[in-house]
Formats: sequence, C-alpha cells, structure tokens
Amino acid sequence: MHELPERSDVVVIGGVAAGPKAAATLARRQPEAIITLFHKEEHLSYAACGFPLYASGEVGSFEELLKTPYGVLRDAEFFESSKGFRTITRAEVTRIDRRAKTVTVRMIETGEVVEHGYDRLVIATGSTPKEPPMPLPKSNRVRPFVRPIDVITFRQHAERGEVDSVAIIGGGFIGIELCETAKDMWGIEVDLFEKQPQLFPYMLDPEMATIVQNSLVREGVRVLTGAQVDKIDLNSDDKPVVYVTGHEPVSVDYVFLCLGVHPEVTLARECGLDIGETGGIRVNECLQTSDPDVYAGGDCIESLHQITGRSIYLPMGSLANRHGRVIGEMLAGNKVEFPGVVGAFVLRAFETNIGGVGLSERAARDAGLEARAVWGSFPDKPDYNPEVKTFTLKMVYEDRTNRLLGVQAVGTGDIARRVDVFSSLLQRGATLEDLFDFEHGYAPRFAEALDPLHHMAGMAAAGLRGTEFVDPGSLPAAVDQGTLVLDVRETDEAVGEPLPPQISDKCNEVIRIPLGELKSRLKELDPTKRILIICRRGSRSYQAAVILEAAGIESFGILAAGLQAQE
Amino acid sequence: MHELPERSDVVVIGGVAAGPKAAATLARRQPEAIITLFHKEEHLSYAACGFPLYASGEVGSFEELLKTPYGVLRDAEFFESSKGFRTITRAEVTRIDRRAKTVTVRMIETGEVVEHGYDRLVIATGSTPKEPPMPLPKSNRVRPFVRPIDVITFRQHAERGEVDSVAIIGGGFIGIELCETAKDMWGIEVDLFEKQPQLFPYMLDPEMATIVQNSLVREGVRVLTGAQVDKIDLNSDDKPVVYVTGHEPVSVDYVFLCLGVHPEVTLARECGLDIGETGGIRVNECLQTSDPDVYAGGDCIESLHQITGRSIYLPMGSLANRHGRVIGEMLAGNKVEFPGVVGAFVLRAFETNIGGVGLSERAARDAGLEARAVWGSFPDKPDYNPEVKTFTLKMVYEDRTNRLLGVQAVGTGDIARRVDVFSSLLQRGATLEDLFDFEHGYAPRFAEALDPLHHMAGMAAAGLRGTEFVDPGSLPAAVDQGTLVLDVRETDEAVGEPLPPQISDKCNEVIRIPLGELKSRLKELDPTKRILIICRRGSRSYQAAVILEAAGIESFGILAAGLQAQE
Repeated sequence: MHELPERSDVVVIGGVAAGPKAAATLARRQPEAIITLFHKEEHLSYAACGFPLYASGEVGSFEELLKTPYGVLRDAEFFESSKGFRTITRAEVTRIDRRAKTVTVRMIETGEVVEHGYDRLVIATGSTPKEPPMPLPKSNRVRPFVRPIDVITFRQHAERGEVDSVAIIGGGFIGIELCETAKDMWGIEVDLFEKQPQLFPYMLDPEMATIVQNSLVREGVRVLTGAQVDKIDLNSDDKPVVYVTGHEPVSVDYVFLCLGVHPEVTLARECGLDIGETGGIRVNECLQTSDPDVYAGGDCIESLHQITGRSIYLPMGSLANRHGRVIGEMLAGNKVEFPGVVGAFVLRAFETNIGGVGLSERAARDAGLEARAVWGSFPDKPDYNPEVKTFTLKMVYEDRTNRLLGVQAVGTGDIARRVDVFSSLLQRGATLEDLFDFEHGYAPRFAEALDPLHHMAGMAAAGLRGTEFVDPGSLPAAVDQGTLVLDVRETDEAVGEPLPPQISDKCNEVIRIPLGELKSRLKELDPTKRILIICRRGSRSYQAAVILEAAGIESFGILAAGLQAQE
Repeated sequence: MHELPERSDVVVIGGVAAGPKAAATLARRQPEAIITLFHKEEHLSYAACGFPLYASGEVGSFEELLKTPYGVLRDAEFFESSKGFRTITRAEVTRIDRRAKTVTVRMIETGEVVEHGYDRLVIATGSTPKEPPMPLPKSNRVRPFVRPIDVITFRQHAERGEVDSVAIIGGGFIGIELCETAKDMWGIEVDLFEKQPQLFPYMLDPEMATIVQNSLVREGVRVLTGAQVDKIDLNSDDKPVVYVTGHEPVSVDYVFLCLGVHPEVTLARECGLDIGETGGIRVNECLQTSDPDVYAGGDCIESLHQITGRSIYLPMGSLANRHGRVIGEMLAGNKVEFPGVVGAFVLRAFETNIGGVGLSERAARDAGLEARAVWGSFPDKPDYNPEVKTFTLKMVYEDRTNRLLGVQAVGTGDIARRVDVFSSLLQRGATLEDLFDFEHGYAPRFAEALDPLHHMAGMAAAGLRGTEFVDPGSLPAAVDQGTLVLDVRETDEAVGEPLPPQISDKCNEVIRIPLGELKSRLKELDPTKRILIICRRGSRSYQAAVILEAAGIESFGILAAGLQAQE
C-alpha cells in the first residue's frame, strides 16, 4: 500500500456498491482528482445479492463474488489501477468533523488512528441488521445473513453435512430466498417463521402472499405466519431451539435471522446531518445531505417515493449503484438528479417468481389514495407453446384518475418483464389508457398477442364499469350458504381439477355450465341468489358476467384470477 | 347455422385477429347489437403466429392453434355462444357498396350470392403474400408460409420423411423463424437466401444482422445474402431447384417463399376508401377510414410511427388485437384512440433471441434525424450466476436532444424484457436521462444491479463527450497497417479466445496489456499510431480509454460491444 496522504479531494466512507460507484464515476470524469475510499471490512466490493447463490453452492467459490467477470479480484489494487481511486480496507471511520472537514479513521489491523481531510465527503455506510427483539444464545449457528462471514459460515456447516434443518426467522425478501438455498440445494428441512399474519408483509398484499406461501408449502417448507418467536436457546447438544408462542419448541441445526435491516447512520447523526423520519439520511434530489459538501447514497439514505411523494426506506443494490453514479457526476460538477423510487423488486423461490413495483393496495390506502384493485391469472406465452408457464397479477390503480399505482406478480412464468414495464409506466405517472397503449414485443416464443398487462387494463376498465371482482383472498368468506357457485369451465377441466375446499366446503350449491352453454341454460340459475362465477383464470368468468348482465341478472361477482390463484 | 338476416348493425369483414376482437368487444358493451362477421376461409380464428411451432412438431395437432386454452374450438358456435356475435365462414365479401350500405357476399360452398346491409362496417381483410418476382413451377412443394394449408402441407411432407432439404427465400421474420422449424426439429438441411446484402433488412442494422447470420451459420444453416433468385424450377424428379445469379443451382425437397406480405386492400380500394402511400388503408387515430361509418384494423391498414410521425406498414398480430379493441369501443360509442406504433418485435432462431423497437440507425437517418449509435455486450444476469446468458445491444439516439430512437438486441439472453421497457420509454418520447432513471427489478436470478439499459445510457453519454466507438460492423475496414490494436483482456482470456481474423489478418501490431497494468505500461504504446482498444464486451475498453485520455493520448477508438459482437 502506498503512503496515505493527509487529505483527499473526496473521501468516500463505505464500499460494496454506492461508494465505489461514486468514486469510479468521479475518477472517470476527473482522473486527476484525489479520491480515498475507507471500508471497515476486509472485502471491499462484493456481490452481496449473490450470497444466496453462494450459500446454496450454485456459485462454487466465494471468490467469484469478489471478482470481475473477467476473473480479476476487486481489491485495492484493482480499484487503484483500473478505476483510478485509492481504497483502504479494514479502516473504520469513527468520526466526521464537518467544521474541520476531516474524518477520523481507525486502522483495524494496527489500531492506528489518523485524521484525514476532505473537500467533499460521500457517506455510503449501508445498513445493519435490525436488533433481534428476542433473547438469543451465543452460537455460531444463530446469525443473520448479511455479511460475508455469515454466508461463509453457513456454507461450511452445510458442506460438512452438519445442517439437516434450519429455522428462518423472517419471511421477507432474504428469508424467502433462503428457503430455496437451504432446501433445494442441500436438502435441508426448512421452518420459516414470520411474525406478521402473512409473508412479505411490506411488499405484497395478503392474497398474493398466500400464493407465495402455498408454493413454499408445496416445496416442503413449513411456514408459520403470525409466529411470535419468544426466544432462541441452545439445547443440551448445543443445537438451537426456537420457541414460538403457542407452539411446541422447534429444534434445528441452524437459524437464519432475517429480520430486516435499518440504515447505518451513526456517523451521519453524530456529525449533525439531518436524519429523516424513516431513519435514513435525508438527501435532496441530487443526493446532497443537509451539508452541501456531504453526499450520501446506498442503503443508508431514505428515498422519495415517486407515487406517494413521501419518504421511504428502500435498501436495494440496484438503487445503490444508481445513487453512486449520481453522486459521482455531481462531484464532477455535472448536475444530475435522482428521480426517487417506485420500488421495483423481483425474486425467486424454487420455481416461483415473485415481483412487484409501486404500491400494494394496503400501501396505497395507507397513503390516503382511493385505490381499486383487479387480479388476473395468465399464461406467459400462448398455451399451445410447450414452454408455457403461468402467473397471477394484481394491479392497483386510483379511482377517478385511473392512475396506475402498482402491480404484484407471483408465478412460474416470466414476471420480470412485466414488472419492469410497469415500473417504467409508473415512473411516468401513467394511466389505464397508457397501459392499453403499451406496445410489447410479440412472438409465441415470448408472449401472447395481447400482453397480460393489456388484459389487466381491460379488467380494470370493467371494474370501473361496475363489474364486481371478488378478491381471491376473500374466499371462503365471500361464499356462504346463500351463494350459488357458477363454474363455467368445461367438463374435462372440472373432472381434472375439482373445486378447492375453500369453495366446496362452504357452499352447498354449485352448478357447472360451460361458458358456451351458458346463454341457452340461463334458466337453470336461481335469480334470487347471489352468484359467484368461477373458472380457471378469470377471463371466462368475465365473459359469463357479460351474459348474465345482458339477461338481467344483477347479483353476481367474479372470482378474480380464477382457481389458479387459489392453488 | 341460423338463417342469415338481411342486415346487421355491424358487419365485419375478416377473421383471425382484428375482426373477431372488434366484434367481441362491441358484443360485450352492447349485447343487443346484431354483429355479423364474414370470413373467406374455413378456419375463422387461429393462432397464425404459432404456425412455425406447428410446422416444427412442437405443437402436436393443428387443432391446438384453433382452440381456446380450455380446449374449445374457436368456431362459429363458439363465437355465437361465448362471444355474442355471428360468424359466417367460407363467405367471401366481393364488393362494398358504401352508398347503399351493403356488402355482397359469395358463399363459397354453394356459390350463392347475397346482399347484406350494415350500419357500420369493419374491414379486417389482412394481408396477402407479395407476388414472387421470379418464375415459379406449379408444385405443392414451392409455397409461401401464410395460410393454414401451407403449414399443414409442410408438416405432412416432413412427417412422411420426404423433406431432407429446404430452401427459404427471404431472410425476414418468418424466414428466420423457419430455419429453426426445419433444422432443429426435423434435422432438415436449410439454405436461406436473402436478396438484400443482410438478413432482416428492414428491422436491423447490418452489423446486428451479421450477429444473427453468424448464429444461424453456427447452427448449420447455409446463408446467402445478396442472393438474386432468378427462378425456381423442377428437376426430372419433380424436386425444386433454386437458381441464384452467380451460383450453382441448389436442388432441395421443399421451398418456403417468405417474401413478405402486402396489405389486402382490394375491397377498400374498389369502394373508394383512401389508401395510404404505404399501400395500407388510411385510418385516423380512432381507426376510422375516410368513410366515418367504416373502420379498418389489422394487417390491412397503415400505421402512424410515433417517432417519425410518418406512415408505416407494420403487420403484427399484437397490433391487430389492439386495433380490434379500439374499433370495438368506438363502435360502442366510447371514444378511444390508437396511439400509433413504435415497432416492437422479438423472435427466436435456435438459441438466439432477436428483437428491437423504434428506429434502426439507417431508418433514423432515412427519416432525416441526426442519429447517433452505441453498442454494448452484456450478461443478462451476473456472471457468477450459472444460468447467465448474454446479448449484444445497439441503441440509437438523437444528437443534441438526446431523445431515444431505438434499440436492437441479439443474443441468447433475456432480450424481450429490455425491448419491452425500451418500447415503453419510446412511447413517452424519453431521453437518455430517462434511461438512466429507469428502475428495474433486481435480483441475481434475473438481472445485474445495473441493467444493460443503464450501461447503454452511460455509453451514449460517453459518446456525446467525445469517446469514439468503432461500429462492430466496420471491422476489418477500421483496422489497417497503421493501427495499433490494444487488447486489454487478461492473459487467460486471450489464450482461450485468440483475436478473430477480422482483426488479426489486417493488423500487424497487436499489444496486449491487461487493464490493471495499463497505467504502469503506457510507455509501451506508440503515441503516433491510431489505437483500437478491444476487450470482451466493451466495458474495459471504455475504462482503458479513460486512462489513455488522462495520459494525453488522443487518437484512439473503442471496439464497441467487444469481441462478443464479432462472433
């Protein structure tokens, strides 16, 4: 390592994503700028989002997460020679003095403490795992899944065959990814505990989370929602035991604490920078903090939600990289703005893809918006294509203005494409009519002639005209003894897939009339009853509703997204 | 069949996509409307875009293309009972009398001719194959690939083992899809002939078409571009022989004529409706023809290009469906507009996905726009993900305004997602800055932390700052004896993948300095020479360019999209 100078033009606190990206962008624009990045840990830049793939064994060596695509380690030498800035690892910044424009750095190896001056400063201190609210034992096998050491530790245990069972505490993004990591690759038994009544409580509405939960259960994951974990302890064999209120204790070989993260703002707070109400550092549209010489980006800042106009804490590697670019350009004197966020996300658990963008129905209501919702189940390609897969969508939009508010997607099919398109539409404040107008790339290898997003627009328009869609999550509550269930599927389908217990257990009157026969058999329906129309995916029910309405039948609803969303 | 009435509220001419969709939409809004659809052929509605999958055997029976996802044949009874309108097949409309508001219909089975009145009319007469410019023999084995009979005929021949070789005349959308249909599934030898100097002449720029061509050649397809087919004849065994100027005649078992289609406007022209300069029926933004009581949609109309503002002929099943909805709503009294087109397309040939949207560089120049272009090669997921695939992008944008104009994509990776997002951006008139701001769904199963579209924005910005990108198609012309080729790849890579002949044959000075060593080895470069920087995908070359520039070296260019785009 070269001798460390006493000051730099720009000091960056924190590696991984936002920090190095900001430094690299500035170094490209101003190769003469003196830039120093301090990072507390040993590994400076790694693909943190790839941890589940290393833990599962799909990525062979941890080094692959540290290397460039062409096999060069992203170490201090790499950043110096290829990216044009200096990095100091195992160097903890313990204090920022904004008046003197210095940072205090403690070298972890040597214990040496130095003061280092800056003209401008970038804070990219990331996030830290939330403090577990329950008592925990001191054990190597009860830990979060955040830092390299967490990931490497699990992999070592798994490789030694020491893990036959895991408990995952927390059913959010990481917790759900880890189900596949543990079960699919190592054959480990998985218990997933989520405190809220549903998985993914902050990103999916309950009925969409239920589809995710059912898919995990089908893969053999034991899922317990509404699970209050009181404590985790060690038994006499030093194995972790999870105690959940109202349940027998569960003894496992390993525990993942996936309780989420909060922004790491200790340094920022101590030097007096504004902290937002979400707990993240407050920044303006150019990612400047309350001190114009100090920028902040990545998981330590709060974001502006482009739909609600409110602050939100959204720690995402993709946003961190984009923050880095904006900060780098700003430091180079190029005025660039960060537009805020709409919250796009995708992940996979076994064969099920999960994604969304914008507001859930609940989030929209919480934000004071008059939200409406529609659901649909779709093939991702034409059904005659042998490669066809399926998914279920929920779309949220605003009453009266018809503004799009959000979409949620769950299924085996290609959801990322639809999430990304919807994200682009949300960013422009698009309406239902814009969704109808969206032009997608079509060939039967990739899509249907009308995209599922077009059909969602159509269903939303039907909802606005008064067609009643029954939330797929409101079964069986929506069915009672007075309900007449009208199954408009074909005979073959009904034989192959009997009605699920959510319907058959609650209702003693089911009549099946294939859609094509409905017009001629309308008199078989009792017009005094409330009718619930069901089919496989929801589209035939919609057509059946048109027929009932034309016949003057008024009291009916459509099981939104059909039986596919009940699986 | 019920007795045909003398008149209908709405008459639709033509089945398949736009016509039935218009009729079904209207029938939903106004179940009492009397709607009659006349269709010339036997099969009223079929998945025409799925023909290649039936021809290949991937779709088992032709019936699957005629059925709904739940197995019901889309025949006259289906449309009457489920969709609410009458359809008459094998019924050719031979004349439209707009003054009397009648159509003359000839029943093909019986020869009977009837007059049928209408209040409003929908013309959805589709397209017809272009007349082949060369003499053709009378043979069942020399035919287009347009109608069901064409497709069924090929499949029968293939199943009987009578086709060991095919010639495909025309290297556009269908011609390229048929390469996979014939070769991959039946093991048939394929010769593909394209008259223009490149494949896909109307949708891809030459260097992107070259990547497609190379991928076809790797799959064993013989591709001849610039091929003037003078005639097709039969030899003494009644086998087709293709005669190409300057080449030996090619004898094959079967010939596909994929020469494109033109709008079928005979009826529209004869009744005096305005025909546009593209040859398609001229319509306004509500898809009304020059007669406000006559609507037209699908492959028989011309479209407004949303970027150029000019008319374009773009026959696409996806657009036809969207036309149908707009017409149906208009007929129901709901004012709806069709926004025009940006030309999104995707297709697959073997493992290679091909797609694009907006203007090619050539199309942009032809439209009088000051177009600039950048290229990039990317993984579609992080390289450490074992499921990673790759693609190459070309992006076209406007000088000064930075408005996005188009993108083209070729590769094994997930291109449909990027094409769709770009389509959405083009529809809103987005600029480079909007592309930087795009928020994608990120997880290593699906994408990198920065999407390839973000990198394209970065490269375009670099181009605007003066970085010179060498068009990947201009090799070897861009390399001469005075060029110093600077290969910044690692040693392992250079050993594993020697420079291709486009470079090594033309240049006698190649120096390899891995990017990480470039700063310290700058003096090995002869500053009087023009330097061409190359790497695998283009991003390291860009970083190397920053280093050269900082060192005061001025004459250099970057091989855009790297060696990946040279394969």
